[in-house]
Amino acid sequence: MIKKVGFVVIGDEILNGKTADKNINFLAKSLDEYGFDLVEVRVIGDVFDTIVETVKHFSKKYDYVFTCGGIGGTHDDITFACVASAFGLEIEQNQEALRRLSAYYKERELPLTDTRTNLAKMPKGCKLIDNSISIAPGANVENVYVCAGIPKIFNVMLNDILPTMQGGIKVHKYTIFKENLSEGTIGDTIAKIASSYDDVSIGSYPKFHDNGFSTEIVMRSRNKKNLDLCYKDIKSYIDKC
Amino acid sequence: MIKKVGFVVIGDEILNGKTADKNINFLAKSLDEYGFDLVEVRVIGDVFDTIVETVKHFSKKYDYVFTCGGIGGTHDDITFACVASAFGLEIEQNQEALRRLSAYYKERELPLTDTRTNLAKMPKGCKLIDNSISIAPGANVENVYVCAGIPKIFNVMLNDILPTMQGGIKVHKYTIFKENLSEGTIGDTIAKIASSYDDVSIGSYPKFHDNGFSTEIVMRSRNKKNLDLCYKDIKSYIDKC
Repeated sequence: MIKKVGFVVIGDEILNGKTADKNINFLAKSLDEYGFDLVEVRVIGDVFDTIVETVKHFSKKYDYVFTCGGIGGTHDDITFACVASAFGLEIEQNQEALRRLSAYYKERELPLTDTRTNLAKMPKGCKLIDNSISIAPGANVENVYVCAGIPKIFNVMLNDILPTMQGGIKVHKYTIFKENLSEGTIGDTIAKIASSYDDVSIGSYPKFHDNGFSTEIVMRSRNKKNLDLCYKDIKSYIDKC
Repeated sequence: MIKKVGFVVIGDEILNGKTADKNINFLAKSLDEYGFDLVEVRVIGDVFDTIVETVKHFSKKYDYVFTCGGIGGTHDDITFACVASAFGLEIEQNQEALRRLSAYYKERELPLTDTRTNLAKMPKGCKLIDNSISIAPGANVENVYVCAGIPKIFNVMLNDILPTMQGGIKVHKYTIFKENLSEGTIGDTIAKIASSYDDVSIGSYPKFHDNGFSTEIVMRSRNKKNLDLCYKDIKSYIDKC
């Protein structure tokens, strides 16, 4: 059974264009490598009810859910409270998170302000996700991984989580890239070949350069035998073009 | 009344990590500039029912909807058919689109294959969205703008559409950027100030560099008077830190 994943990107700064998201592609590539299917991404703002409803919906709909953003300690960081609410949990001062943060700030001679202790106000009973960059941990509640929005931190969290996820089934793939060949020229035949391979997903991606165009055909499947056959068919056709 | 916008990014290649989306940030920045609120983005795959349902839902929920991706002429391009289905329209060979495409390919001495005429199979009665890069037009049906996924083409389409959209109300903003000041240090006071300005959205964005950290405070509002007051409060506090 293929494991499906949903991703919720949380943050007004993505929606108003201040910040360009980098996490979608990192998560997408990582999940693909581990054999999980990313099925849907939603980008939503820092709005309590919207976050709660989206997390609830995704947790039921997908095998695994990731969120990023909104887990800092400032007034606009509400993701932990939303995830707690989605699962009917209380928010509590997580003692292990507080211990890590206290040690981190003590070493740096920084006072433990409310904003800093807020970082440890997490859903009751959550598992911590380590953060080797700025210490403040993420939270795992049931099938939801609540991660930081800052790409560098999101990446280290993800690299810890992925090897612990169960049930990935590797997707095999081939790519054929051809300069000066337009998809308009080869598309009719590719469509015919595609119709003979139900379990191979064939993507056709045109590129427009200043001096011409090219086409990339990507074949993906978990059925290696059919993928190999499909690749042979397309390769031998493209070689003749 | 603030106009709300939803954006549907369509394409397996975004979800499997082959391609990093560039359109979300371009649309987000452009809408912000014109005074529209991007409220939600969904990234979904090349799946007929999912696209139909998402377009239907967004068209009802938001004042304007943009889609990108899946309007090429190959077998994996199904967005026009999905949008037609969402509005109960037929797909027809759009005569003006076909005229433009025929002229374009004739000039380049390229045959009018099915894949190329497919580019003109559009929802009946749609308005065309010009494409000065590769000619194949996008489609406007009711409040939905169906655009190309290739960023260069998405951008030219958007630049045509935005000035025609009605009802934008400019958002005013201030940004304060401070090196070597952590949001953990200033967050408690910023939270207090934020609580006095309901109609000013204040975002606090930490950055971690190799040699330290910094904080960016972004204040945004359509109420210029309150924004100015809020900015003065925060600026005078930060200057003292």
